[in-house]
Amino acid sequence: MLDREKQFIQTLRECGATFGIGDDGVVLDRFIYASDGFFEGVHFKRQWGDLKRQIAKCFYVNLSDIYAMNAIPKYALLTVCIPRDFKEGKNLAKDIAQIAKQNGVLLVGGDTLIGDKLHISLTLIGEKCKKLLYRKGIKIGDYLGYLEPKSALHLAKSQKFGKNIRHLKSALRFNAISKNSRFFTPKLYPKMLLELNLEAKAGMDISDGIFMELSRLSKINRIDFKILKKKGEWFYSPEEYQMLYALRKQKIQKAKKIALKNRHNLVIFAKAIRGKYQLKRRNWHS
Amino acid sequence: MLDREKQFIQTLRECGATFGIGDDGVVLDRFIYASDGFFEGVHFKRQWGDLKRQIAKCFYVNLSDIYAMNAIPKYALLTVCIPRDFKEGKNLAKDIAQIAKQNGVLLVGGDTLIGDKLHISLTLIGEKCKKLLYRKGIKIGDYLGYLEPKSALHLAKSQKFGKNIRHLKSALRFNAISKNSRFFTPKLYPKMLLELNLEAKAGMDISDGIFMELSRLSKINRIDFKILKKKGEWFYSPEEYQMLYALRKQKIQKAKKIALKNRHNLVIFAKAIRGKYQLKRRNWHS
Repeated sequence: MLDREKQFIQTLRECGATFGIGDDGVVLDRFIYASDGFFEGVHFKRQWGDLKRQIAKCFYVNLSDIYAMNAIPKYALLTVCIPRDFKEGKNLAKDIAQIAKQNGVLLVGGDTLIGDKLHISLTLIGEKCKKLLYRKGIKIGDYLGYLEPKSALHLAKSQKFGKNIRHLKSALRFNAISKNSRFFTPKLYPKMLLELNLEAKAGMDISDGIFMELSRLSKINRIDFKILKKKGEWFYSPEEYQMLYALRKQKIQKAKKIALKNRHNLVIFAKAIRGKYQLKRRNWHS
Repeated sequence: MLDREKQFIQTLRECGATFGIGDDGVVLDRFIYASDGFFEGVHFKRQWGDLKRQIAKCFYVNLSDIYAMNAIPKYALLTVCIPRDFKEGKNLAKDIAQIAKQNGVLLVGGDTLIGDKLHISLTLIGEKCKKLLYRKGIKIGDYLGYLEPKSALHLAKSQKFGKNIRHLKSALRFNAISKNSRFFTPKLYPKMLLELNLEAKAGMDISDGIFMELSRLSKINRIDFKILKKKGEWFYSPEEYQMLYALRKQKIQKAKKIALKNRHNLVIFAKAIRGKYQLKRRNWHS
């Protein structure tokens, strides 16, 4: 399926109709934009229950993209298609309002319509902080790390980085999902991210799995990566919505400290080397 | 159906989650935003044929909102859901690219996904010109006018202002549509609009029919309107995507000249008076 989506974007590019696509968000002046569709039957099922959590996820995905570029989410444009058979339109609006407010986001426009299924298209607008963080900027000798919540009493095992691939597959197969998984309830740590962003040379939000993101980073930065950790679920799991950072060696200790202070481990898993990264496994859903 | 949509937005407002909603677009710094969903089965049917024209309409609706505020469309964020059974993804991308380029718009982001039906969510970003044009600013004694393409040899009768209500109803009933109607192929006259915008005190894009827009303008401006022209289709027809202007009496002649120069008639149809406007007929689709 990914191929058709890729082809679509590729064609838009070839026609010279695009500008600035390639990072988690696009930058115009002091504003950063991130858009995502969240469609019933594609990204979620109403049968999974707890719609508010699912809508929160839609927001988190975009919030995550804005923070990934070292910007602060401020405004949102929201297009909602409410299903004809859906009785709780008012509650839906209340939930959306609460999620927006909790995340410091004001709804400034959009569209509401009545249709077959519940579809949400969200455009988040962030304001940039001191410096923006891009996917480009990694040099040979830099290290890559991902963030993992520290195993502590308050964290379920299912919150561990790399478990989402299991949760997603089981959700799609059995129409049920572990409510503790980060796939269902991603968590954002804006304070930590904004602090870590300043130490990093480059960064991105992990959405399609680290093995896929490495391919993107390799192309943009014209480098290869030496993997320093045994490959496992952490390498393939999609939709983690955790940051992947590129750091100079001298910055690693400071970054690890910042992560620890926020109950996270910064796991260094690769080093940038000369060469071209070979994508050895296809995307999980192809 | 409109009631559920209204209720949804009303609830978001009551929850204090919105900001700046009420004009054709919302303003942040020098940028103006307009968002609209264009959903298969809700706004169009693939059976109507000529998909490119239908997508062009989706762009026009938003372009129209941007021009209505006296801004220039510059960028777009586009979320497209491509149906699984849809083979012409590449052509769709080419069409979208062409429409964007023809209208001076660069695609800066969005999302592409595969689903059941063809859905498009578009956010257009415009840059403001000298002054912005709002819905607010009408005083007692000002006149309202709408634009109508001048009957000339090159214009089909179906292009006349007020005919869209017929085209829309027949399209929904018979799955067929007159390709000459402005409902199917709205036309934009940016040069004329940007010139007229400077003469107007207030303005808005007519989307739900003049009788509905008067209700909105009445509330915002705390005035009533005396209708100067016999009510007919021109009064009720939705989706005209023509500008409604409020003008001082002294500006009417100049505005009429600008319209004529661009092969349009500026039809003066109401005068702002003291009082509160009573909406006497419900929306066409309720």
